[in-house]
Amino acid sequence: MTKRYLEDFAVGQTFASGKIRLDEAQVKSFAAEFDPQPFHLGEEGARGTLFGSLAASGWHTAAITMRLMVESEFRPEGGIVGAGCELAWTRPVRPGDELRVEVEVLELRPSKSRPGQGMLKVRTTTFNQKDEPVQLITSNLVVPRRPAR
Amino acid sequence: MTKRYLEDFAVGQTFASGKIRLDEAQVKSFAAEFDPQPFHLGEEGARGTLFGSLAASGWHTAAITMRLMVESEFRPEGGIVGAGCELAWTRPVRPGDELRVEVEVLELRPSKSRPGQGMLKVRTTTFNQKDEPVQLITSNLVVPRRPAR
Repeated sequence: MTKRYLEDFAVGQTFASGKIRLDEAQVKSFAAEFDPQPFHLGEEGARGTLFGSLAASGWHTAAITMRLMVESEFRPEGGIVGAGCELAWTRPVRPGDELRVEVEVLELRPSKSRPGQGMLKVRTTTFNQKDEPVQLITSNLVVPRRPAR
Repeated sequence: MTKRYLEDFAVGQTFASGKIRLDEAQVKSFAAEFDPQPFHLGEEGARGTLFGSLAASGWHTAAITMRLMVESEFRPEGGIVGAGCELAWTRPVRPGDELRVEVEVLELRPSKSRPGQGMLKVRTTTFNQKDEPVQLITSNLVVPRRPAR
């Protein structure tokens, strides 16, 4: 698959991904390693909390989103390298949910200080199997410009 | 350890964490699962990229930051539950780096629509062993208010 330089992107373009399904064991093992809070570790600990029942760590959703982006048709030259992002978790992710992402190009801007690169602003929406958005990320990515011939 | 209600926090308070050291195997295995790009997977793939040498996925840094927050003295009642955040990666994290976090309370605000809870805005800075910030996160957390007697 071809990779894209800054010049190959256009505002409004969207890119789809494949799907990843999370099972209960994965939800619990990610949480045990990185976010060991009762509502991410088991059904019992989630009762009576904001989540009501077992929910994946938001950082697990973010990590799976990255995997889906890397394997999507988005493919900027030089890889997906972010300087930062804004992130919102809009719905809990539950064991058994199947996630997919859509990446939309919001803005592109050549760098003033570094002529070989630019910034690409994209919004990545992560959906569950009911097409409900579970997470929104707006990122600023560093993307190389097409080298002059 | 006591947990804190919204009323128990004050703007300017800071909370420290323990430390977590990342080794090369952990950097590579997180990347293989969640961010399979050459510069996160091995020394060779990182050569000639923006990173120059093997660097941890930013999402790995974010996940470790969460672990450090959960185990820090911060401890809001009801757990650390974020509605969203702004995230900036300021320096690469390398195999062998030892990370720690500092959480600072920026703002606290009772909810108008939900009298039992409020929003706590905190900045979490992740430092390496040279005390260089590698990541900044500003998060809005949902924290319960102290129940009336």
